Amino acid sequence: MKSVKVGLIGFGTIGCGVVKILQDNQKIINDRLGTSVDVIKIADLDITTDRGVKVGSGVLTDNADEVLDHPDIDIVVELIGGYEPARTFTLKAIKNKKHVVTANKALLAKHGEELFSSAAKSNVSVGFEASVGGAIPIIRSIKEAFVANRIQAIEGIMNGTANYILSKMSDGGHDFDVVLKEAQEKGYAEADPTFDIEGIDSAHKIAVLTRLAYGTPVDFDDIYVQGISDISTLDIKCAHEFGYRIKLLAISKFDGKAIDVRVHPAMIPESKPMANVNGVLNAIMVCDDLMEENVLVGHGAGSLPTGSAVVGDVVEIARNMISGAQNRVPPQSFQQSNIKNIPLKDMAEIEGEYFLRFWVLDKPGVLSQISGILGNHDISIESVIQRIKDDNGQGVPLVLMTHDAKEKNIQAALKEINAMKEVSEKTVLIRVEK
Amino acid sequence: MKSVKVGLIGFGTIGCGVVKILQDNQKIINDRLGTSVDVIKIADLDITTDRGVKVGSGVLTDNADEVLDHPDIDIVVELIGGYEPARTFTLKAIKNKKHVVTANKALLAKHGEELFSSAAKSNVSVGFEASVGGAIPIIRSIKEAFVANRIQAIEGIMNGTANYILSKMSDGGHDFDVVLKEAQEKGYAEADPTFDIEGIDSAHKIAVLTRLAYGTPVDFDDIYVQGISDISTLDIKCAHEFGYRIKLLAISKFDGKAIDVRVHPAMIPESKPMANVNGVLNAIMVCDDLMEENVLVGHGAGSLPTGSAVVGDVVEIARNMISGAQNRVPPQSFQQSNIKNIPLKDMAEIEGEYFLRFWVLDKPGVLSQISGILGNHDISIESVIQRIKDDNGQGVPLVLMTHDAKEKNIQAALKEINAMKEVSEKTVLIRVEK
Repeated sequence: MKSVKVGLIGFGTIGCGVVKILQDNQKIINDRLGTSVDVIKIADLDITTDRGVKVGSGVLTDNADEVLDHPDIDIVVELIGGYEPARTFTLKAIKNKKHVVTANKALLAKHGEELFSSAAKSNVSVGFEASVGGAIPIIRSIKEAFVANRIQAIEGIMNGTANYILSKMSDGGHDFDVVLKEAQEKGYAEADPTFDIEGIDSAHKIAVLTRLAYGTPVDFDDIYVQGISDISTLDIKCAHEFGYRIKLLAISKFDGKAIDVRVHPAMIPESKPMANVNGVLNAIMVCDDLMEENVLVGHGAGSLPTGSAVVGDVVEIARNMISGAQNRVPPQSFQQSNIKNIPLKDMAEIEGEYFLRFWVLDKPGVLSQISGILGNHDISIESVIQRIKDDNGQGVPLVLMTHDAKEKNIQAALKEINAMKEVSEKTVLIRVEK
Repeated sequence: MKSVKVGLIGFGTIGCGVVKILQDNQKIINDRLGTSVDVIKIADLDITTDRGVKVGSGVLTDNADEVLDHPDIDIVVELIGGYEPARTFTLKAIKNKKHVVTANKALLAKHGEELFSSAAKSNVSVGFEASVGGAIPIIRSIKEAFVANRIQAIEGIMNGTANYILSKMSDGGHDFDVVLKEAQEKGYAEADPTFDIEGIDSAHKIAVLTRLAYGTPVDFDDIYVQGISDISTLDIKCAHEFGYRIKLLAISKFDGKAIDVRVHPAMIPESKPMANVNGVLNAIMVCDDLMEENVLVGHGAGSLPTGSAVVGDVVEIARNMISGAQNRVPPQSFQQSNIKNIPLKDMAEIEGEYFLRFWVLDKPGVLSQISGILGNHDISIESVIQRIKDDNGQGVPLVLMTHDAKEKNIQAALKEINAMKEVSEKTVLIRVEK
């Protein structure tokens, strides 16, 4: 078999990783695949900066069409990220009968429908293992390993930047802003960290996984998203007192009728493996009717971990080319004819336990008043911490955990409580996931 | 496409799980695969016991040849376990051009060579995801996701029975014998638990993974194996004092020249995700040059978890049949021509940190004498616990952790120490894995 020819669009962090892996690990790839994989063209706007990776002369170009229209290229690897021009490039590659490998969760979350249906028409493969969880083989596992399983929930820590910040806040007791700055200096957070810390990146990823798990398109804009910028060290300390850790979770649950999909900070019991996944690590849990739970933990970002997932997809497509297999595994996990629209649950109807941190004037009767309002809204209290000394002159924290309650009842109660004159700051709410 | 026809040999716990899954989850499998999978023949010595699973008339037989010789059967699923007659049946299935799916780690560890080479000759697939880690997709991940990666180590908790016992000893402070009896009553341990608690089952599994990770045959009998029956609650308590948990680990490391493969109890820092994998759960970590570490956690045994892995393999083979793919992924992960004999490291040359628990007479000078012997053998002490009060009339425990030391030096030192008249019991040694 002749070698498999790859063209790259985007020569940034992951692109360099992919080229480096295909060079440095050429022998082991060949030992397993039985043929070699060669990058014959790389397109990037910047073709002058030295990236520390050697490429042959004539390989680099600033014109993406030289990749997209190249007659010898079998697989186009799209690594520029974002919606455009990634969408245009990818669609053109597919139209030109190239297989596509992408790490672009934003593109898949927003334009998945269009992408998958054109790939089906052109009879080419779309690999996207690298789009969620970096080196964690979650997409392959859902599509191939858990193929007999009725998935009931996927939950995970899907953003390394946010997890790094929460872990550091937890370890060192430093505030969000201080830790964010440190993460930026270390290269763990971007100059504009909005996508990571506000949960948007996690929402893109849970949209991709929801589609695969249940066989339904998801409108990305319908996903409830809340980031971690409101989390204080006090919340982390209180979580610890209750035996919990705070993590930014992406959640997707299916009860057979509707899907509950959301991204927000959540308290996890510290006895759970996921509570102990710290730093830049990601973790993704799949629950279903057959195996209860399966948790996959690994590096969710970075040049080589994400690059290794990209190369895994390239090799998978190469194997299909070599063995003559067409459409072996449907790209959306379900056969196209079995994709159906499953409705999303209204966030107001979600039920769960809640951690609430009030900031109240240190006067008698305040707890009684607050618990009265909660009771009126059918919310009962599981436990209370009042002893934390943290008076900033304008009050003291009052922290409690509720029993199971409805989101809409919690929101209605908080509206009343936040309006009390004895409550000096907006109440912080963190959902509990057991 | 016509439906895929499966024949089962072995209608025990996992066999029932497989049949139940193919019946109850028929629709979701069909939605993903695009065709149905039917079990048309089941062979078992016992065809009278009601297993709570409905099978059609004429499906059950006590003659395995009715499965092996059946002209319509595409895939033979072997679930009887053990070396024989599993080996004979599997080889006959392969000779008859049937694809094979098996959960039999003992067979693969002992007769892997023979099995894989006859499958290659007959041009059929061998699926064995269910042989290691139950529902954990470790085999598929090594063969497909980590295909560009130079694997450096695989380490894991691969036996649920042993992990259940150690977890219960840790939680409740009960002794090994008490917890084993409880595990047997609950069905988590077999009447004869030797394979599980003495590490043999874990050794079978690490033999299977070693072959896949590095592309080498492993002689199962060369693997160093030590079980958990010597672990006391005192060791678990001491581990806790040092910030560790004791787990039965299966370990396989490759430094590019030789492989270090072994099974024994090990101390893991409690901050590591694997230290918090408790009860019957399994966890398998893969370390390599690209993604650092990836940990997969899930149910390593049981009718439905293991059954789901078997059905995953059946579907994979069905997909290859439907798409016309032959030998898409080499069964041993490496191309047959790239399988080479990599030598095993001598256990005496292994280096690491050690936990040592001595039982000594409570007299002055004993610690000094013991540390003197250790020093003579080039072993330096990291920390000591002497304050545990547990005098049984014949002495007190003296517990210490060493810095990096060579196994042969440790063994030589322990020989001298065990011969001291102030040492009243054989010293317990637990290796530390960070």
